[in-house]
Amino acid sequence: MTTNNENITTENEALADDVHPVSPELVAEVVNALSVNDDEQVDFLLEPLHSADVADIFEQLGDSDRKLLTTVIGSKMEPGVLSELDDSTLGDVIAEMDDADVARAITQMESDDAIHVLEDMNKDEQRRIIDALPHEDRIVVEEGLSYPEESAGRLLQRNLVSVPGRWEVGKVIDYFRTEKELPDEFYEVFVVDPMHHPIGTVKLNKILRSDREIIIRDIMEEDPTVVRVDMDQEEVAYLFRQYDLTSIGVVDDSGRLIGVIMVDDVVDVIEEEAEEDLMRMAGVHETDIAESVFEASKNRVIWLIVNLATAILASMVIAVFDATIEQMVALAVLMPIVASMGGNAGTQTMTVTVRAIATRDLTSSNVKRVIFREFSIALLNGVIIAVLIGVLSGAWFQNASLGGVMGLAMVINMIMAGLAGILVPICLDKLNVDPALASSIFVTTITDVIGFFAFLGLAAMVLL
Amino acid sequence: MTTNNENITTENEALADDVHPVSPELVAEVVNALSVNDDEQVDFLLEPLHSADVADIFEQLGDSDRKLLTTVIGSKMEPGVLSELDDSTLGDVIAEMDDADVARAITQMESDDAIHVLEDMNKDEQRRIIDALPHEDRIVVEEGLSYPEESAGRLLQRNLVSVPGRWEVGKVIDYFRTEKELPDEFYEVFVVDPMHHPIGTVKLNKILRSDREIIIRDIMEEDPTVVRVDMDQEEVAYLFRQYDLTSIGVVDDSGRLIGVIMVDDVVDVIEEEAEEDLMRMAGVHETDIAESVFEASKNRVIWLIVNLATAILASMVIAVFDATIEQMVALAVLMPIVASMGGNAGTQTMTVTVRAIATRDLTSSNVKRVIFREFSIALLNGVIIAVLIGVLSGAWFQNASLGGVMGLAMVINMIMAGLAGILVPICLDKLNVDPALASSIFVTTITDVIGFFAFLGLAAMVLL
Repeated sequence: MTTNNENITTENEALADDVHPVSPELVAEVVNALSVNDDEQVDFLLEPLHSADVADIFEQLGDSDRKLLTTVIGSKMEPGVLSELDDSTLGDVIAEMDDADVARAITQMESDDAIHVLEDMNKDEQRRIIDALPHEDRIVVEEGLSYPEESAGRLLQRNLVSVPGRWEVGKVIDYFRTEKELPDEFYEVFVVDPMHHPIGTVKLNKILRSDREIIIRDIMEEDPTVVRVDMDQEEVAYLFRQYDLTSIGVVDDSGRLIGVIMVDDVVDVIEEEAEEDLMRMAGVHETDIAESVFEASKNRVIWLIVNLATAILASMVIAVFDATIEQMVALAVLMPIVASMGGNAGTQTMTVTVRAIATRDLTSSNVKRVIFREFSIALLNGVIIAVLIGVLSGAWFQNASLGGVMGLAMVINMIMAGLAGILVPICLDKLNVDPALASSIFVTTITDVIGFFAFLGLAAMVLL
Repeated sequence: MTTNNENITTENEALADDVHPVSPELVAEVVNALSVNDDEQVDFLLEPLHSADVADIFEQLGDSDRKLLTTVIGSKMEPGVLSELDDSTLGDVIAEMDDADVARAITQMESDDAIHVLEDMNKDEQRRIIDALPHEDRIVVEEGLSYPEESAGRLLQRNLVSVPGRWEVGKVIDYFRTEKELPDEFYEVFVVDPMHHPIGTVKLNKILRSDREIIIRDIMEEDPTVVRVDMDQEEVAYLFRQYDLTSIGVVDDSGRLIGVIMVDDVVDVIEEEAEEDLMRMAGVHETDIAESVFEASKNRVIWLIVNLATAILASMVIAVFDATIEQMVALAVLMPIVASMGGNAGTQTMTVTVRAIATRDLTSSNVKRVIFREFSIALLNGVIIAVLIGVLSGAWFQNASLGGVMGLAMVINMIMAGLAGILVPICLDKLNVDPALASSIFVTTITDVIGFFAFLGLAAMVLL
């Protein structure tokens, strides 16, 4: 018994360690094996790994090692490795592979993975590889690529399981046992009418619990939620989250069932969408980490230049008051505090608002209440910070009036920051501009300009 | 045929519109019905909705309407509504419900949902409701609450399907048909040894495809990935994402299978974790949007006060150079530009780094390469921005030396911002401090202090 228990503990510890099989040590071993051209050792190291982990190794290698590894395993590349690579690494790896090898891997994929691999290639490369596909796959892939990017059509897998409603459970099970062309994975069966319109779904566990003579129509869930092929992937993800789905049917314009979207693909979409907001708010491209130095530099510098323009605008406000500053240099010392606090308070409100819009927690039903809430928070925190900085700066420069001006400017700026933080994203959303992308430029400009204007303007009036 | 097609189109349009059944109009109708105490109308409006949508309505109502609605439907509250509410709304709703009604709803939930509803209550309330549960449920719930927050133990559902490996497919199916205590949903069957250690899993579609006489052991996937009950939920989410899982077994310290985590709960975790990063980087609480004005104000003002301290630090740097500024007020005008650009560039790098750490794209295998990459981008963009602002400010103030100083200060600041943006999150992560939470304080302080120091210091040396 004791021995048995010890074994179990060891086994479980192994499992716990296995959570991240791609350790830095493993990557180092792969790099080593590549550097001495020991292809067998490379195969030996990668053999026990899941495709997703092999993809991680590709992503963590430098350019030259990545090329080497592609050369070593390119001709026997698992389809799953390609479909799990991030876009930039995928581009690098495919560029090194023979078109025939890429085409072979694509043929073995479900249609959604094939589309994922093909969609970001340049047109020439894409054409060459599509031409290398067998006729049947080529048609499926070309149709998939004809749907808009980030639509349901790009996520769907053509291969699905559908049965007529009049079948009995026993007949369905017999069909599963004999049919060879079923998808690798499925969680539910679609019930369709003769026109192939979905009229219901049955979860597999429901089929397994029902006696063989039960009619499928009698155990199906009627009026299943389905999505149109052109629905935005964000809406699709919303449905999965809201209704705890594992798969959803996709219909074409005439309502015929043409595919199914699986939860694992939607998990990727959910993560991408949340990440997109984070990256956009900071002015970086979603795929920045996987981009080359020049791509990333180019994408980031655009944002910096836009910000430079807004910073210059703020400077111009200061320039209006240059005579005032000349008379009282303490203003120059304190000035950045007003701008910085306004910026921070604005960013807080803006982040909450952008997220609330994305998760549909902010709607026209509660927008007035939420604006009032943000105004109240801004007023409250504005007063707290104003008192703090008013007292501190009054004491620092032994000048109570300066402290008063600082405090008053801070209240004004923090309230404006709060209002800008909520109103800017709401307006941008109404104008169909992504609030995550553009809000911070406007909010920062507003807080800088108003902050400097309030502080220096009040100072000019009160102190001189 | 034409008529038929028209019908289908209409039907599909209805489906497309149904994506968000909780329209502002519907919320307004509910509010109306509540205001005239028309309980029947409220029931009529909510009856066709999914529990998750009813939960959305609760979240969108103001405090008083929320109380009214709870009074109207509290005694017949669907368990699914409670488990879908956000934490703050949940607290409000439960406070208005009878303990007995809450207990009744909890009894009907899977264990993970029950834990979710109970975990954020205050201790007294929690105790009262647990005491109102039937003995069996009470034990399950108390055990669930004994696991650490955000661990696998809080996500697991006790009810799972396990069979011995020697059973035949036919016997498993017969068991499903007769057993009444199966979970509402399951996607795979766990194969266990006599000690209830998991030795394999079989997907339901595999069972459905296999003949009745096949032995389960022969079709199971061996050595299934399982997690320990104390594993952090972020790690659990990683496994689901990495290996495209729909459910995963949970074992206790002795390796016995004690529950299962389902993909729909992990989808929520994935979204929460990405959202957490976004909110923390902006200095707001993850649950801000659902908090009262005072809670939100309190949570946000802490961040603002920390930022105030760093802003004062930057001001002190400026104060060192007050004589310089007095002689050349143009410095005060240009000063905020240096700080603002450094802050923006630092935030870009920091956001990419925080995200790369969270998604495990940044590891010790590639850390040197990534630091070099960020340095290169910072250098490149620093030079671009420096040339731009150098020329502009030189022209603005008709002073080439001032332009030169501005440009040089900008290059220094942008490079330091890039380095701070990558090194700060990496160091915090090594110290086990959440990089999303603390990075921006350090990065902003560094860019402000270095920005002002470089600009004003260079100006003092070169220009005066």
